[in-house]
This record gives sequence, structure tokens and C-alpha cells, in this order.
Amino acid sequence: MAGNTWGRMFCVTTFGESHGPALGAVIDGCPPGLPLCEADIQPDLDRRKPGTSRHVTQRRESDQVQILSGVFEGVTTGTPIALVIHNEDQRSRDYDKIAQQFRPGHADYTYLQKYGLRDHRGGGRSSARETAARVAAGAVARKWLTQRYGITIRGYLSQLGPIPITAKDWTAIDQNPFFCPDPDLVPQLESFMDDLRKSGDSVGARLSVVVSGLPAGWGEPVFDRLDADIAHALMSINAVKGVEIGDGFAVVTQRGTEHGDEMTPAGFQSNHAGGILGGISTGQDLIAHLAIKPTSSIRLPRRSLDRLGQAVEVQTTGRHDPCVGIRATPIVEAMMALVLIDHALRQRAQNGDVTPPLKPFSLRA
Amino acid sequence: MAGNTWGRMFCVTTFGESHGPALGAVIDGCPPGLPLCEADIQPDLDRRKPGTSRHVTQRRESDQVQILSGVFEGVTTGTPIALVIHNEDQRSRDYDKIAQQFRPGHADYTYLQKYGLRDHRGGGRSSARETAARVAAGAVARKWLTQRYGITIRGYLSQLGPIPITAKDWTAIDQNPFFCPDPDLVPQLESFMDDLRKSGDSVGARLSVVVSGLPAGWGEPVFDRLDADIAHALMSINAVKGVEIGDGFAVVTQRGTEHGDEMTPAGFQSNHAGGILGGISTGQDLIAHLAIKPTSSIRLPRRSLDRLGQAVEVQTTGRHDPCVGIRATPIVEAMMALVLIDHALRQRAQNGDVTPPLKPFSLRA
Amino acid sequence: MAGNTWGRMFCVTTFGESHGPALGAVIDGCPPGLPLCEADIQPDLDRRKPGTSRHVTQRRESDQVQILSGVFEGVTTGTPIALVIHNEDQRSRDYDKIAQQFRPGHADYTYLQKYGLRDHRGGGRSSARETAARVAAGAVARKWLTQRYGITIRGYLSQLGPIPITAKDWTAIDQNPFFCPDPDLVPQLESFMDDLRKSGDSVGARLSVVVSGLPAGWGEPVFDRLDADIAHALMSINAVKGVEIGDGFAVVTQRGTEHGDEMTPAGFQSNHAGGILGGISTGQDLIAHLAIKPTSSIRLPRRSLDRLGQAVEVQTTGRHDPCVGIRATPIVEAMMALVLIDHALRQRAQNGDVTPPLKPFSLRA
Amino acid sequence: MAGNTWGRMFCVTTFGESHGPALGAVIDGCPPGLPLCEADIQPDLDRRKPGTSRHVTQRRESDQVQILSGVFEGVTTGTPIALVIHNEDQRSRDYDKIAQQFRPGHADYTYLQKYGLRDHRGGGRSSARETAARVAAGAVARKWLTQRYGITIRGYLSQLGPIPITAKDWTAIDQNPFFCPDPDLVPQLESFMDDLRKSGDSVGARLSVVVSGLPAGWGEPVFDRLDADIAHALMSINAVKGVEIGDGFAVVTQRGTEHGDEMTPAGFQSNHAGGILGGISTGQDLIAHLAIKPTSSIRLPRRSLDRLGQAVEVQTTGRHDPCVGIRATPIVEAMMALVLIDHALRQRAQNGDVTPPLKPFSLRA
Repeated sequence: MAGNTWGRMFCVTTFGESHGPALGAVIDGCPPGLPLCEADIQPDLDRRKPGTSRHVTQRRESDQVQILSGVFEGVTTGTPIALVIHNEDQRSRDYDKIAQQFRPGHADYTYLQKYGLRDHRGGGRSSARETAARVAAGAVARKWLTQRYGITIRGYLSQLGPIPITAKDWTAIDQNPFFCPDPDLVPQLESFMDDLRKSGDSVGARLSVVVSGLPAGWGEPVFDRLDADIAHALMSINAVKGVEIGDGFAVVTQRGTEHGDEMTPAGFQSNHAGGILGGISTGQDLIAHLAIKPTSSIRLPRRSLDRLGQAVEVQTTGRHDPCVGIRATPIVEAMMALVLIDHALRQRAQNGDVTPPLKPFSLRA
Repeated sequence: MAGNTWGRMFCVTTFGESHGPALGAVIDGCPPGLPLCEADIQPDLDRRKPGTSRHVTQRRESDQVQILSGVFEGVTTGTPIALVIHNEDQRSRDYDKIAQQFRPGHADYTYLQKYGLRDHRGGGRSSARETAARVAAGAVARKWLTQRYGITIRGYLSQLGPIPITAKDWTAIDQNPFFCPDPDLVPQLESFMDDLRKSGDSVGARLSVVVSGLPAGWGEPVFDRLDADIAHALMSINAVKGVEIGDGFAVVTQRGTEHGDEMTPAGFQSNHAGGILGGISTGQDLIAHLAIKPTSSIRLPRRSLDRLGQAVEVQTTGRHDPCVGIRATPIVEAMMALVLIDHALRQRAQNGDVTPPLKPFSLRA
Repeated sequence: MAGNTWGRMFCVTTFGESHGPALGAVIDGCPPGLPLCEADIQPDLDRRKPGTSRHVTQRRESDQVQILSGVFEGVTTGTPIALVIHNEDQRSRDYDKIAQQFRPGHADYTYLQKYGLRDHRGGGRSSARETAARVAAGAVARKWLTQRYGITIRGYLSQLGPIPITAKDWTAIDQNPFFCPDPDLVPQLESFMDDLRKSGDSVGARLSVVVSGLPAGWGEPVFDRLDADIAHALMSINAVKGVEIGDGFAVVTQRGTEHGDEMTPAGFQSNHAGGILGGISTGQDLIAHLAIKPTSSIRLPRRSLDRLGQAVEVQTTGRHDPCVGIRATPIVEAMMALVLIDHALRQRAQNGDVTPPLKPFSLRA
Repeated sequence: MAGNTWGRMFCVTTFGESHGPALGAVIDGCPPGLPLCEADIQPDLDRRKPGTSRHVTQRRESDQVQILSGVFEGVTTGTPIALVIHNEDQRSRDYDKIAQQFRPGHADYTYLQKYGLRDHRGGGRSSARETAARVAAGAVARKWLTQRYGITIRGYLSQLGPIPITAKDWTAIDQNPFFCPDPDLVPQLESFMDDLRKSGDSVGARLSVVVSGLPAGWGEPVFDRLDADIAHALMSINAVKGVEIGDGFAVVTQRGTEHGDEMTPAGFQSNHAGGILGGISTGQDLIAHLAIKPTSSIRLPRRSLDRLGQAVEVQTTGRHDPCVGIRATPIVEAMMALVLIDHALRQRAQNGDVTPPLKPFSLRA
């Protein structure tokens, strides 16, 4: 009820604050029999972790994950899998100044309004550091989806501030610190980020994610449509302000003849829908986009208030990402994996292993 | 698990198909003591119902709601409230032709892939007719929110195909068939729709919704952030392909100095956040936008397949809205009411009536 | 949250009061493809309905069920199945007298304390009449369990007040108004009940239920053990004060050598466990018992209070069962069916159709 | 879905196996502002922990709990509280022999049937060791219930094998290793247990629990009645085979005139109901009883099978409680606390802080 659990079937409960002893997640509902060890999870954490380039926060965390339960002799047992990541580099003193102030655009004010108190150290629970636990849990989900269905989930940076990016080369994504799928643009991004960092300001970003290999038939009308769950999952990531499926907001000006994806015996002829119709997967590539706002913690001075309601000028020092969107790609992939495994299990509950599709055919575009 | 229930506290389960005997909803968790009768619900249904102008479907449904339980002597008792709306004008024969075909852009194909069978009459459960039940349940939620907190929820059409609309006049919204807040634009919309209807094509739309009077402190980090639940709720409406909170996708190019809403003793100085920070309401107006795709059922011929996988040309006759976005405004308001009452009750469970905010102040922009 | 939904997978939400317009249930999560019509449900309702003998309440209700959704061309579609039963014989005036009084042993007092108001007509939502909706939903669950797994669920009266009853003849159960499995005892039960009715008093009963054909491996440790869910389900039936699995309270004095069911290649050698070990089904017969208290509404005078806290003498007229346990057998079976289908679907979600049991063997006692 | 979470509001997810690295629980939904530290939790763990007398298992575990999150400056923040207890004394080799065998009465066989594999070390997840995590979480719930409502929850041993025990002296309970409320009986219990231990056999027990100070009005009809949730919670404890509320199975032979608790202006005149009517608390003492079966792991030889289905003779060495009921008292109290806090928060969600009871009076017996 308090909102820290994702999923109905593959239930992930995360815990932990930015500057507490540890972060973690408990997964309840992972099918038994999946080979699993820390090495299956660590790579995704390493992709997300801070300090990997000069363009992200310089906090030093090894983000080593430990499995506390649910795995026996290298295989999941069907019982809860507890994952723990210990915090190492907490400089809580950096935050003493803001303990009594509200950073504009930040959750400081709302946490206090909601709970009547707040852990101000590094943003406490509102810190993007919480997403490390999601990435760890998502890695387990992703492994199962890949093993069982051959599904691949690929996120990337599709726009950095004013610079749009096209998905030219999937293999490039993990070879630069921006998750940028166009290697030719990397120098421009570096130069842009260097300027931004010097300016003390921050900037927004657009991310995209593509899922391939998805079976048709996943998604639960009417409220838990696959697209609705994806929107929920992606909007639950820190700083996200918009979510699109397929053509997204471009549909506003489209005509029906333009938008509706025609089918021929050779398959779907287009994918404006982004792989979802009526809230259920079509079997085409699933495509989603999201908008991430500029980091709220910036060095430049901003007008705000202290806890007594008096005017103050806030300048956030400490260590922050000038564009939180950059490190968000592994988080987006993780959330997508959590959505999909949940719907896979829901579908299996209702229809069993043999998906009913009495298809004389199954379309892929 | 099968996805037909919304909410953790104020739980709404809808049922019913486009051409079945009835639609309805059961509300479990409505606080006791709320004065309630059919007349509280009917106006919202009337705003949504078909056949009110030449610009929407001509199906004739009175959409009269009946309360079957949970109300005694004009007051809710705290027990489940069952609402039923009987279908009246089903011309199932109109759909015989498409029983064996998949309309492009429609859920025909995916329902069959998911369930192995489908009720093809009027789209069955995938029909937007299902949303009548949501509107009925939403009216109950809205009444409670208004009575207890003075909250108002106002949706409107903010773009019809290529025609952008500005919220000039709230009182105009319910005085034209488009939920258009700019009375001067109505003739242009009418003319546009007349041309569209003649063409046999359909078009997309953008809707917006503004909530005023919301207390600060609602929303459950981390997965059930208020914005995440709103994204879920709005994306669960038929034909929605994108959701934005506050500035939405415009944040991609914004700087931190531009986006972060400053605070002064006079209140928030802007509302780029759309009233939500860290997934929790700020007390400012809550603002969301959504994109609705063009209707899939159109008269113009489209390439598709039949159940045997053979190429067919589909032309949808029957009675359809050329722009499903037009009638969606009451649905958007209803879903917003369902999200908000759920978070109101969650917040009350955790913090009691006296919201803890030990505020020396409470900001409103 | 308000407690009117059973199940995580096969979710049943009931609604309706004793003297409101209708009772009903919405089932969300019924697998698609199950042949279903009203005639599949009616027999169980007829077994439970009032007025079938002089030993039960004389209220006259035909309890005709109507399916409003979720079935198309005689088969479930996977969408919500709404079931409605209209009330016919409400003599609300019978209850005018008790509107301001609390019947001892009845929910009158606690409903008022909880909700601040109550529907006093026939007990409102606290009436055992609510269970008609459960029986209807249970019939759907039972049909699926029987079709798919060959499971049978048989309840019976195992003690009426001081008269213990042994399960001598399964076929006898539905051939007398007591659900008594020993035909020779029926005259004694009739005579006992005739005397009881004349006395104006009421009496308790013990019921038992046996499930055969259950696969091994159902149940979700640790909180949702199969026995724990059964205890929850049976204790949720009106007037139940105790639940036992297998040997139940007799285990208190047993030794480990006596209780633990030995296994040989020929199968389990006994069934003290009642078919559940570690919260998971063994594949043996599942056996449970429950205790039902004497009816609270009796003609004999009792000391109580009115709403102002003043002493009154309460004598309940109206039409009541002198032993509510008698008509409870179909309800017990229904709740058992709802528990089992939920665990069947949970198990299928986790392990797929092919239950993993790498059994070289599977034991049945 | 996989059953390791308790509660809708105060959600407790436990994890961990008997011989894994750690056990623990994550609490989501604890109200903010509760003073909390490890010292609030440790006493309950110490009451439950093994090795405290010769009458229980000799495994040596310090059961030190650590709080990983959700508490800041000594107060709960409203975010998830993660509790961890590291295992210290695992002699997994003791279990090598039973890795391929099924202990009669134990979950060995059913875990294998359910999951297709099992962690055999010390029973893995099916071990009563899992309940340490429940006790830790329960201590948090109990503290809140005591602080906010003055509620006390007291469990005790009410029968050990053939020896019935009367609740003569509440203060005696924590002064003997049996949780026995009659100090005069302790020598007899010691002698009985010494003989039992020597015999290599085990025995069952009956436990009781009494809750005082409970407000009227808690409980959610119809499925989540307070008694139904208690039955669920208590039956979810390892080895429990029966649950009673109030007079329990004694109601079978009672008359209505005997059972129904009369009310006078001085209060309830009796408490046959055990403090619950219609599934809602009356405000009287809440009384429940449970039956615990004899330990399945015993030294005496038993007939069973190995994984190939071949006959074997099983003798369980290792370290086991000859009566698991003895250490179960803190677990029963913990589960009761978890049930009650959940209903407290549900009630608060629906009715706010000011419970509606428009009582001119409120009865206590």
C-alpha cells in the first residue's frame, strides 16, 4: 500500500536510502529452476553505477550485490530472493546545509509534507540511488525472459537536451558513457556535457527502449493493459515527466489511415502502435519513449525557502549528475523487464504454457 | 490479476461488453457516510454518452445507471457499491462481417492471440463502451473528493488533429460537444469534423486535465508515485498513446534553471512540475496531458487478414466516433478521480486525518 | 482493502445486502474457454437457498442467477463474469423493531461501531444471504477444477448440536435437507430440529469437507500456505468459530510417531495431515472441519441495549434458520473451490502446465 | 503472489532459509514518526530464539537483528524498514542424509512436488527458523499498537500434550521456558519434556492468545473479517492444524441462549464470541486458540521413501525441538500484531482518526 512493491506475480519490494547502511530488493515469485548468481546481476549494476565517467556523479560506489536467499546450488528455488547492496561512499555532511532548505524541483518539500519528517541525507529515499535495487531485480527478470522466450530489451539515449540521436548502431550503446546508439555523435555529446558541467546548470533528456522477441498476447485489459503498466513503470523512475508508446504524441495529428498498422500475409506493414493494440502485445517490437527532466540539484543559485518559510538562496554542492537521463538507460531496461515478466506470468496463469493463439499464423513485422 | 480492478483502497472492478446485457462496476472501499444516489452519477454519464451530437457515434444509449447495493437511506454504508448500466442499442449484426477479420489498429488480433477466442460484437470488452462503467465509479470518487477536500477536476480538449486549443474559458467546456475551452474555436472544430466524417477517415486528439485544491503530500514513492499512477490510469484509457505530467516532453530541452519551480514566501513561482515532485503532490494545480490516436474503425478500405491468415480488405461500417478523443474528457476526469481518492485513502491510512505537515506554511502557486 | 474480494488470481468481489435490490459477484480471472451458462451455477444456489424444508428459514427466494458479462457463445472469454441474483422476498418491516437495538451475538453492534451507521434490514451486508453470491462464484470455480483436474469437493454435516454424524454414504448427502451423510440419522435430526424450533432457541453444528483428486504441489509458503488460505476462507463464512485441517485439535495430545504419515511404495499409510504438509498439498484427500455457532437471531428473550445504551429485552421475530450450519454446506464447498482455483492458477503461473514434480512417483493414500 | 508477504497496509515480506546467509523482512507501510531501534525488536527475538533451555533445539543463534533502512535519527520515516538476521550456526552436514529422503510429516515431499527442487539444509524455507523474521516485524507492529492504542497481546501455552494449563498468572509466562501461565505446573512440564526427549519422540501443544485494549470496529467484512484474517495468520505458522476464536469448537453443542453474549449498561455479560462479531471487533478481549502438531523430525525410526520412490527408514538426527509449540508463543503474538496493525490502518483509511462510532456508549466486558 505504501508503494514500494512492483508487480502482482514477480513482486519486487525495494528498500534503502541514499545514505543508509544498504539498499536492496526482495523478489517474491521468481519461478524455480533459473540458474542465478551474483555475476548475472552485477553487469547491469555496473552499467548504472556512478563514477564511470566525468559526465556523471563522482560518488564512488562499487555497488556489489549479494544474494541472501532464494538460490540453492546455483539455481532459484521459488522462494524469495533477497538482494543487498551496501552503501560505501556517503558524505552526509555535504547535505547538512540543505537539511533545513527545499531545493527547487526536488522532493525535499513534498517528502516533508507527506511524512512530517524526512531523511535529508542525499535525498534519502527520493534519491535516484534507490534505482540500483530495481536494476538488480530487473537483471533477474531479464535473465528469465531471455532464457525462456529469447526476449531482448534495449534502451538508449535518444535525445540529450537539444541534440536528437538516431538509433544507428545497437552495438555502440554500451561503448560510450551516454548509452548513445550513434558513435559519430559521441564527441558532440562530450563537448556539450563539458560545457554544461562548467556552467553549473543541468539539462533534460529523452530515452527510448525497444523490446524484441515478445510473444503476442501479453497484457491485461482493461486497467492493466501492457502499455498502461509500462507507463506506470517508466513514470515511476525519478525525474520522468512523460511516456509514449509507439508514435506517442505524434498520433494527435495523424489520420486513421496513416496510423492503423496494416497487415498482409507477410506481416504487419508498419508499427505506429509500438507493438501494443488494445493493451495487448502484437508480437512486433515494443517501442516506448520517455522524457527526463533536468537534474534539480544544481550549483547555480535558486530562490527557495527554509523550513520556517523564510526566503533563502539555494546552491547545491555535493556530487550530482548534470543530466540524470544519462545513467537512466539501465533503469528503464530493468523496469521494462519487471513489467514483462509480470505479464508473462499472468498470461501463463490464465492460459497455461501453450499460449492459446490458435494461429494459423503469427505476425511479426 | 486479470486486470479489471483499479485501486488498492477505493477498488473499482468493471465488467461488461459492448453488446452484452449490461456494463457495470463494483466499488469496494468507499468510505461510509457519503450521501449518494443515481442523480449524483448520471450527469457524468450523460456527458460521455453517445449520440449527443453529429460529431460522435450515433449509437443510442440512455446509459441510465442503477445502484444495486452499498447505499442505505441515501448514504453509503461502507459496503460494496454495485452500479449497473444496461445496454439498449446493440446492432450486433453490423459486426458479422468483421467477426472473421482483424481491423487494422484495433484489438481484434491481440484479443484473439491472448484469449484464443473473442467476443467480436462491437469490440466486446475492448470497446470504449467499457469506460461508461469507469465514469460511473469516477463520479462517486469525485463527489467524495469534492465534499471532503474541495477538489475540482477539469478535463478539456487541448488539440483536435492539427488544431491546437488554449484553455481560455472553463465555463465553455460543457457548452459545446467537443469539451473545447475556447468558444471561438467551436465553429472551426465543427467544420473540421464535418469534413472528416465525410472523408471516412478519423483523427487523433490531445486532452488535458487540471486538478485544483489538491492537498500537498499525496503519492506513494517509489513505485506508486502519484504521477506514475496517473500515467497508468490515463494510459489505460482506450486509444491513449502518450501521457505527460506538467511540462512533459518539453523538459527534454529545458535547463535546470528553467525547469525547477522556485519558491518564495508568496508561494511557488511557476509550475513546470505540474504539481508533483518526487511522486508526491505539491499542493499546486496538478496538470496532465494525453495523446489519443485516431479511431481504428474507419470506412476507408485497409489491408488486413482474416482468421485464416488470408489477405482481405477491411472497411468498417457500423457506428463509430471519427475522433474518439472528443468523448474521452469525462473518462479522463473519472480516472483522475479514481487515482486521487485512492491516494487520499492511502495517505489517511498512514498519517491519519491530521496530515502531519508540521508546516509553518503551505505553499500554493 | 475493504475486504469484499477473494483471491489473487481468480478474484471474486461480492456485493449486495439482504434487503437491497440484488446480490451478486464479479469474477475477474476466470480462464477463457470454459463452457458456462446459468444452468451450471443454479444447482448449487438451489442447494443453498432458503425455504427448501421446514428446518430452515421460510424466506422465499428463487435465487435465479443471471450472467451479465464474460461469456460469449456459451464459453468464458477471459473477461470479468458478472453474476446477479435479485432479491424477491424482503419483509423489511420485520426488522423495524431491531433497527434501534442490538441482537446479542449479532453483528448489529459491531457494524455500527465500525461504519457509524448500518443497514439494519435483515442484517444488511452481515446477513448470510450474502453467501449466495459466493456460492454462484464457487460454482464457476468448481466447474473449472472438475473439468481440468477431475477434482471433487464434498461437504457434509458432521455434527448437529449433540449428535455426531459419520460419513457413511456420500450419495445420501443431497437426499436430505441436512446434508447428512448417514441416512439412518435423518429421522433423529428431524426430530431434534422440530423440538429446537418449538423451543425458540438455536444450536451449533460441525461441518466437514473433503477434496479428492487434488494434485500435489499446490499452496504458497509461507503466508499463503494452502491450509492458511483455507482457514481464512472458512472462517470468513458467517458464524464460523473454528477451523481444523486433518486431525485438527486432536494433534495436541498426539506423539510424532502417531501423527506423521508414513510413506511406502504403496503410498501414504495414513492421512493425519489432512492432505497438506508445509502448506502444500500432498495429493491425498484434503480434509477440513469447521465449527458453526448457534444462530444469534432467536425468539427467546435476551438482555441487550438500544442505540442510546439503555437496557432492552430483544426477541427476534422474522424468519431465521434455527441452525445456520445446515445450509452452510454449499457455502463451504464454494469457498473451498475458490481457494483451490486460486492456488491452481498461482501454481501454473510459477511452474507452467507441466508441474515440475520430477516424480519417479506420485503418492496417493 | 508467491505468498511471502503479509498484509495489505502494513506489508511484511520475509525472506531467508534455515541454512542460507541470512533471514529477514521488509516492512512497507509502517507509519512515519514511530521511535524505533534494534533494542525494540531484540527482546521478542530473544524470547523465540533457540538454545535457551534444554527443552528446545540446541542450535546456537544469537539472532541479532539489524535495521538497514526506513529509520532516521531514531524514528521511522514511512519508507520501507529492512530487517536482517544473519545465520550463524548452520551444520548443513547434519542434513546430508535426508537430502534424498522424505521425513514423514515434513514438507520435504511437498516442496519437491511444488518446486521440482528443494533446499534440504535444515528444511530450507520450510524451517520454523523463518519465523524469526516474522517475530522481528511483529515487534515493530506491536510497538505501534501499544503506543497508539495501548493494546497488549499476550500468548501462552495452554496445553502441552496431555497436560492442560490454565492462565493463572500472566507475569509467570516469561519466567519459565514454556511460556506457561501457571508456575505450579512448571515442574510437571519439565519432567514431561525430559521423558519425551529421552524417548526420541515429540508431542503436540495448544497455545492461546489474548488481546486487550482493542477498539471496537476493526475488521473488514466479508472476506477479510478480523477472525478470518487471524485464522489465516495463525494457520500460516509452521505445524498449526487448528484455530479457534472465542469458544471455538465448543459452539457446536451450544444453544443460542447460551452462546450469544448479552449486553447491559454495565457492558457485555460474557465473551463466548472471543471479542469478534460479524468479523468486527467488539472492544472486548480478543481470544484465539491454536493446535500445534508434534515435531516431524524425530529420532525414532519411521517408514518413508527416497527420491527414487524406494522404501527407506528415516531417523532424524540434527537438533530439533521435541515440542515446536513451546517456542511458538512469540510467533503467535507477532502474527497477531501483524493482523491488528493491518486492520487498524484499514479502518483509519476508511473512517479517519475519529472512529465514527456515534456511541453514546462503548462497551467493554
